[in-house]
Amino acid sequence: MLPSRVCRSVQPSAALRSRVARQSYLNKLARPQDLVSHFKNGDYIGWSGFTGVGYPKETPAALAEHVEKNNLQGDLRFSLFVGASTGPEIEERWARNKMISRRFPHQVGKSIAKAINHGEIEFADTHLSMFAQNLTYGFYSLDKKGGDKTKPLDWAIVEATEILSDGSIVPGASVGATPEILASADKIIIEVNTALPSFKGLHDINPIAAPPYRLPFLITHCADRIGTPSIQIDPERVVAIVESNKPDNTGQNAPETEDSKKLAGHLIQFLEDEVAAGRMPKNLHPIQSGIGNVANSIITGLAQSKFEHLNVWTEVLQDAFIPLLDTGKLDFATATSIRLSPEMFKTFYENWDRYFDKLLLRPQQTANSPEIIRRLGVIALNTPLEIDIFSHANSTNALGSRMLNGLGGSADFLRNAKLSVMHTPSARPSKTDPTGISCIVPFASHIDQTEHDLDVIVTEQGLADLRGLSPRQRAPLIISKCAHPDYKDQLMDYYERALHECLAKGSAHMPHMLRNAFKMHINFEEHGTMKLDKWD
Amino acid sequence: MLPSRVCRSVQPSAALRSRVARQSYLNKLARPQDLVSHFKNGDYIGWSGFTGVGYPKETPAALAEHVEKNNLQGDLRFSLFVGASTGPEIEERWARNKMISRRFPHQVGKSIAKAINHGEIEFADTHLSMFAQNLTYGFYSLDKKGGDKTKPLDWAIVEATEILSDGSIVPGASVGATPEILASADKIIIEVNTALPSFKGLHDINPIAAPPYRLPFLITHCADRIGTPSIQIDPERVVAIVESNKPDNTGQNAPETEDSKKLAGHLIQFLEDEVAAGRMPKNLHPIQSGIGNVANSIITGLAQSKFEHLNVWTEVLQDAFIPLLDTGKLDFATATSIRLSPEMFKTFYENWDRYFDKLLLRPQQTANSPEIIRRLGVIALNTPLEIDIFSHANSTNALGSRMLNGLGGSADFLRNAKLSVMHTPSARPSKTDPTGISCIVPFASHIDQTEHDLDVIVTEQGLADLRGLSPRQRAPLIISKCAHPDYKDQLMDYYERALHECLAKGSAHMPHMLRNAFKMHINFEEHGTMKLDKWD
Repeated sequence: MLPSRVCRSVQPSAALRSRVARQSYLNKLARPQDLVSHFKNGDYIGWSGFTGVGYPKETPAALAEHVEKNNLQGDLRFSLFVGASTGPEIEERWARNKMISRRFPHQVGKSIAKAINHGEIEFADTHLSMFAQNLTYGFYSLDKKGGDKTKPLDWAIVEATEILSDGSIVPGASVGATPEILASADKIIIEVNTALPSFKGLHDINPIAAPPYRLPFLITHCADRIGTPSIQIDPERVVAIVESNKPDNTGQNAPETEDSKKLAGHLIQFLEDEVAAGRMPKNLHPIQSGIGNVANSIITGLAQSKFEHLNVWTEVLQDAFIPLLDTGKLDFATATSIRLSPEMFKTFYENWDRYFDKLLLRPQQTANSPEIIRRLGVIALNTPLEIDIFSHANSTNALGSRMLNGLGGSADFLRNAKLSVMHTPSARPSKTDPTGISCIVPFASHIDQTEHDLDVIVTEQGLADLRGLSPRQRAPLIISKCAHPDYKDQLMDYYERALHECLAKGSAHMPHMLRNAFKMHINFEEHGTMKLDKWD
Repeated sequence: MLPSRVCRSVQPSAALRSRVARQSYLNKLARPQDLVSHFKNGDYIGWSGFTGVGYPKETPAALAEHVEKNNLQGDLRFSLFVGASTGPEIEERWARNKMISRRFPHQVGKSIAKAINHGEIEFADTHLSMFAQNLTYGFYSLDKKGGDKTKPLDWAIVEATEILSDGSIVPGASVGATPEILASADKIIIEVNTALPSFKGLHDINPIAAPPYRLPFLITHCADRIGTPSIQIDPERVVAIVESNKPDNTGQNAPETEDSKKLAGHLIQFLEDEVAAGRMPKNLHPIQSGIGNVANSIITGLAQSKFEHLNVWTEVLQDAFIPLLDTGKLDFATATSIRLSPEMFKTFYENWDRYFDKLLLRPQQTANSPEIIRRLGVIALNTPLEIDIFSHANSTNALGSRMLNGLGGSADFLRNAKLSVMHTPSARPSKTDPTGISCIVPFASHIDQTEHDLDVIVTEQGLADLRGLSPRQRAPLIISKCAHPDYKDQLMDYYERALHECLAKGSAHMPHMLRNAFKMHINFEEHGTMKLDKWD
């Protein structure tokens, strides 16, 4: 418990009183700057937040200001745990101030990626479905010194949009790992955001016990509820509440392009063919889709398609789902966060009643649960950095070493979906060559999704249906259907030479020339393009 | 339906009558050689069987004899689907006779691996939990010509140890994908094995509907039953039954070695420490373990440990579990197959009543289900071919291209376990060097298990606990704890050079030198050892 003087000097606003039904918490109201001195170098801190929404905005900013004012860069460093990413104005500032020594299980943002790639932050990607349970198991605090040894975290700092009379918390636009972060923390700070509407009723917080006491998730439809509308916590561990009135600092979604529309067209045609062949119901299976221009095009394409009574079981809902709801073609959508652009958030808040009954936010352990994804037969759609000719995909590390994007929940969905789709442009520009980077390569320079996890690869060039094919059947199909024309011959040449050599050696299950496996990547590093003069 | 003359000439033995309660099936009794002419080149065939037990022994042998007698090698080829592997006397003979054009989702045996690696059999590894559902979805028969287009398979040939009056089938020592193979086949042949005891009551066959109708698997303990003791089938699709009296043709298990005992010692010490730290219950979590000398040593080690009231949730039960049951330390064990050596099968059959209540066999979709593995918090123990310094593992392809062992269920368990362990010797002999192959390499030449899926790596040298570590923290730990002394300096040299280069480039999340990533593999191909003169 913090000294009581911390909490005496602040009086709750009327807005705050209307959101906090638990009187004892109002007695702990504090100004964020007064909390700063209680944080110690080396503390383990968990935040709420997922894909840049629902994160705490005041206390972390006060800590950053404290570091900046007192030149403490490098002297006040924390192990930071958040379900996924938070707002750039907070996390990027922490990274620039060298306030993050460890970060699990996800990262987004230039400064934080830079610090990871320069050896300043110890980071590891973790399946987002596993992070929260691994945290509660104590797997991230094996060497934790000091503090309450029975709790993996020293602090939880979480955003709420309402606090109920039992002391439980109604989150905002994300649930993420907030329940487990709260359960894992010695001390809890709650930031009550009065600038957002109360999200009460939009969440389904299901209890998730650790083995051997875990029970089945009794969900058989996207709209099923198996929990409560708020997160239960131990009120005695709440050391302070803080009023916050800053919105989630989201940016714009990537706009559609001609290529993303072309790609979405291939995919929607494929789904129509699957329905016609009787391998999928008329309203498809629940859809998982990411963020980005291709995801936008696919969802927009679905809005213009013949499909009706669609359902969405996904990790994060983005802008395009709102117009899809407006068309009446989408019956229900559930995720662990709703990450909209500022304009779309405005539309969403203004038309709350129209959307309220069609949306549900769940903990990331539930949203990304292999159990439910496999049961529902989800259609998973994700983007890699690159994919190889045998269908191993790199979701994270450029040239094998440089952390670019986090893994997120891509593997949770792709491994367990009924239909696992990866969509990517066939090529990307380098500094000197408009198609200097082929997204189809002989050997992925880092592998997050294996050949065993993917059914379909689609680029603006075309779609390769890999189901039931051997590696030797996959490679020519992926090259001919998906590769950029600038790379088709080069890749086919690799494959045919590798096949020839490996057949001679009796090792042609997955024909490779290991000496040339990364030659395109090395050429790119040296010459700015993956286009080769020759293979040998 | 086959012509009735096929079935007229054979009279059922008394033994067969005692096993077949369905009279209409007895009227379909046939000799296997009389069935041969009904198989057509290109047919899609599913067999029962898993890890070399419970497979059909008569009809496939008759087909092989037919091919041999009539020199039909290459002219009578089939797409063959089995839950995992079958008996070598059958499947190897088919491979030698060029009777297999496609094989999913697993393979074991020299002739079949040779044919795969020589481009004669189209094979792909598939997660064993996914194979059966992908089969019923029609994913393996997208281009299937002729036959009943509504069924993915033309034939199911399955072994039973009893047939009940409702026409349902009691399998033998494995369930595997038999329920889905039966449901997917146009025509069914049942081989009733009268040389084995009836296994009635040893199976739990739970119904598994396809999405959107799939329900939760309501299992929260290894002993839970959620199904029936036999596999329901459509009696009208049974075209013949055949009497069989051949035992499952299993071999010996690999014996323990000094190194495997040392490795098991490291692991059991680690588990004791986890219990002491409060991260596991005193009786551990349910254990999954494979086949091989290390698995033997681990299970034998558990029999000698302080642990009691153990439970096993695994894919296949092997010899060592029987003495573990005898010690009274193992409460219950469940799997999809029980694959014992001939001697241990004898012990098992002779003491049937002692083991009957402590064992249960399930469909592989259930035994390998991510849902249940994660819920129970299984401890998964598996062996790779090689593992890299950042903890990506190769379970299948030597030197990236040559199929050696199948993937099996390793990824089903390692991805979803609470504790994911890979155990391997630190080095293996090449033809010219007793430690010519390092099982720890800079970059795995094929990746089946990613860095996101493994918690612990253990060799006879030591154990590396990777939980909560970044890639830069993992590499030095894996090298120092697990690598063979002959390779420690060489591997550390790779890592330090890669780190130095990547820090200079700002790309040091997972430091690699792509130009040297496979240098140890290439050196092995050229010089018979992974020991290098120098890196550059």
